Amino acid sequence: MKNIYILGAAGSIGLQSLEVVEQSNNELNIIGISLGSQETLNRSILDRFPNVEIVCLRNHTHLKAFQDQYPYIKFVGGDEGLIEIARYPKKGIVLNALSGSAGLRPTVAAIESKKDIALANKETLVMAGDIINQLIKMYQVNLYPVDSEHSSLWQTLKGEDTTDIEKLVITASGGSFRDLSREALSEVTLEQALKHPNWSMGDKITIDSATMMNKGLEVIEAHHLFGLPYHQIETVLHKESVVHGLAYFKDGTVKACLSLSDMKIPIAYALYYPKRHEYPSKLELTNLSFEPMNFKRFPLLKLAYDVGLQGGLLPTVMNAANEAAVKLFLKKQIKFLEIENIVMETVHQFENKMEPTLDEIIQTDEWIQNHILLTYGKR
Amino acid sequence: MKNIYILGAAGSIGLQSLEVVEQSNNELNIIGISLGSQETLNRSILDRFPNVEIVCLRNHTHLKAFQDQYPYIKFVGGDEGLIEIARYPKKGIVLNALSGSAGLRPTVAAIESKKDIALANKETLVMAGDIINQLIKMYQVNLYPVDSEHSSLWQTLKGEDTTDIEKLVITASGGSFRDLSREALSEVTLEQALKHPNWSMGDKITIDSATMMNKGLEVIEAHHLFGLPYHQIETVLHKESVVHGLAYFKDGTVKACLSLSDMKIPIAYALYYPKRHEYPSKLELTNLSFEPMNFKRFPLLKLAYDVGLQGGLLPTVMNAANEAAVKLFLKKQIKFLEIENIVMETVHQFENKMEPTLDEIIQTDEWIQNHILLTYGKR
Repeated sequence: MKNIYILGAAGSIGLQSLEVVEQSNNELNIIGISLGSQETLNRSILDRFPNVEIVCLRNHTHLKAFQDQYPYIKFVGGDEGLIEIARYPKKGIVLNALSGSAGLRPTVAAIESKKDIALANKETLVMAGDIINQLIKMYQVNLYPVDSEHSSLWQTLKGEDTTDIEKLVITASGGSFRDLSREALSEVTLEQALKHPNWSMGDKITIDSATMMNKGLEVIEAHHLFGLPYHQIETVLHKESVVHGLAYFKDGTVKACLSLSDMKIPIAYALYYPKRHEYPSKLELTNLSFEPMNFKRFPLLKLAYDVGLQGGLLPTVMNAANEAAVKLFLKKQIKFLEIENIVMETVHQFENKMEPTLDEIIQTDEWIQNHILLTYGKR
Repeated sequence: MKNIYILGAAGSIGLQSLEVVEQSNNELNIIGISLGSQETLNRSILDRFPNVEIVCLRNHTHLKAFQDQYPYIKFVGGDEGLIEIARYPKKGIVLNALSGSAGLRPTVAAIESKKDIALANKETLVMAGDIINQLIKMYQVNLYPVDSEHSSLWQTLKGEDTTDIEKLVITASGGSFRDLSREALSEVTLEQALKHPNWSMGDKITIDSATMMNKGLEVIEAHHLFGLPYHQIETVLHKESVVHGLAYFKDGTVKACLSLSDMKIPIAYALYYPKRHEYPSKLELTNLSFEPMNFKRFPLLKLAYDVGLQGGLLPTVMNAANEAAVKLFLKKQIKFLEIENIVMETVHQFENKMEPTLDEIIQTDEWIQNHILLTYGKR
C-alpha cells in the first residue's frame, strides 16, 4: 500500500486523482488532502476516504465544525495548512494538484520533508524550476510529471539516454478558439472560452489553452523537467489530442506516446510508478493530423519561449500576470484579448533579475498579481 | 570498434548495411561478408572494405579468381561458406540479411559460436522460432530485430515490463495493390507488383508486401521475438509507413515508434545497440491515417495467424510454399493470385507435425519448395 497526499483534492485533477485511488483496490491509500471551500463536497470526500489523517481546509472558519464532525482527523487551514500536509511525518507521495502559484511553497515543503512529488502544478517549475531541481538533488527525491504531455515525454524517454535526444515535441489541441482568426477573437465570450474541444479540465487551464499560454508554461516546465535547452523543445498543433508528446532521437527515430484524453491515465502513471495499473481505457486509432505551430496566431506561446530563455524572475512575472488576468476574465472584468495584452505589457515593463531567491519569486508573484487585479479589475 | 559480419551483403538490406558501416567513422568494422553472384558488384564491395578477413561467394566457380586477386582474404563458397562465416573465430555481431529459408542454418551456427545476431531474415524465426529461442538462452546471446516494425516494437518496449503489454500492433502500408479490389488483382503484372508505394526493398519482400504474406511472417516473427500469444499481436493499415509499430499497455497508454521509410535507421539501431548513432534523417509530421486490417482482402495474413497458432511444421510449410510461389511469379510462370492459391492449398494439404527438429524443418522446407517448383513451374 502506497501512502498518498493530495493537494487540491477538490479541483479537477484532484477529483480525478481521488477516483484513481478509489479504483486501486487499496494499493493506493490517501492519508492527507487539502480541500476547497465547498462544504458539501468536502464532507462527501472525507466520507469516501476514511483513512485520511490530516486535512487542510481553505477557510479557517470551517475548521471547528469539521473538527467536531470528524474528531479522528487533524484539521489545518489555509496556505500554512498546505505546508503542514507537505511536512506530515509519514512517508508518502505528494500529488500537487493545486492551481496557480499557490502550489510552489507546498512543493518545496514536501521536497524538504523528503517526499516524492507527483506534479500537476506546473507553476512550481515555471516560477522556480532551477531552485526545485537543486532541492530535488539535495534531498534525493523524485519529481514525476502529471501533465499528460510531460507524462508522455517522460514515458518516451524511458530507458533512453538524454544525450540521444534531438528534440522533444509537445502537442497542442489549439484550445476552444483554434478555428477562429485573431480578428474573431475580440468578441468571444467567457462561456465560449470555457468549452475545450477535447479535455475536461479546470477553468484556469481551459482559458490558458485558448490563449496557448498553457503550452508556453508547459514548454518552460519541460525545459526544467528534462534539462533541455529551449531550442530542443517544440510544439505542434494536433487537433485530436491523441498523441501528447514525441521524442525525436538523433538517429532518426521518433517515439510518441498516445492515449485517450483522460487525465486519470497520467495521474495513475505517476502515482503507481514504476508500475502500470490496469485501466479499461481503449484507444481506437483513427486519423491523426499535425500542423506546424502558428506563433503569430498564438503570441503568448512565443512570449513564453522568450521569457523562458531569459529566465530569472521573468517566468514568474509572466505567470503571475497571466494568472491575474485570467482571474479577471473569469469574472468578466476584461475581454479575452486583454489577457494577452496585460501579460505582454507586464513582461515588457518588468526589469528582470537573475537567480532570484524563493522569497523574491513569491513576493514578485504576489506583487504582480495584486498590481494587475488593482489596475485592471473593476471595483 | 565493433566487429560486424554481414550475411547477404549484396542484397537490398545488405547494401544499406554497408552504407551504415561506411558512415560509422570506423565505429563499425566489417570483418566477414557473404556476397552474391555479381562479380563486379562483389569486387566493388571488397574494395570499399579493406578490413574484411573472410568472404563467402555464392558460386564456388568464382573462388579461384577472387582468391588470386585478394590473397589476404579467406574465401569460402556456397551454403557451407555461410556457416564458416558464422563460425569465424573472432567476436562480432552477425547481421543476417539473407533472403528466405537459406538464412536459418547460418543463424543457428552464429548462435552456437556465441555471436549476437542482428536479424533481418525473418524466415529464421518463422520456421524455427521455438528452437532459436532455446538456443539463444542456452548460448546466452542477444537477438536484435532489424525489420522496421520489430525494431520499432523493441524500442517502444525499452524499459517496460512485458507483463504490462496489452497488445502489440504492427502497421502495414498495404503494398503495391492496396487500392485495388480483389477482382482487379487477377490481371496485375509483375512490374506493377514490384512498385512498392513507400519502401525500396528486395523483390521477394516487395511481392510479399503486395500479398500481405510479409505482414503474416512478421506477426509470427513478433510472436517469437516478444513472447506474446497471437491474440495480443495485431495489424493495422497505415498508408504513410511513418508509424511502424505500437505497444498498447494495460494502463491505457500507447507507445509508438515513427521514422522515415529508411531501412538504414533500424539497421543502425541494431548494429550500434545500445547506442544511437547520429543520422541526418528528419521526419516531418504530417497527417497519419489508420484503417482496420481487412482479412478478406488479404487472406494470406489470416492464414499466417492460423498457421502461427497451430505451430509445428506448418509455418515452415507456409513460408516454403510462399517462397517457391514468389520465385515462380518473379519468373512470370504464375499469375499474382496463384501465389495465394498455392500457399493456401499447400498448407491445407499438409499433415502437421509438432515440435519438429531443425533437420525436419530444413528438409520440409526443401521438399515443399521443390514440390511447388516442379508442380507449378514451366520447364
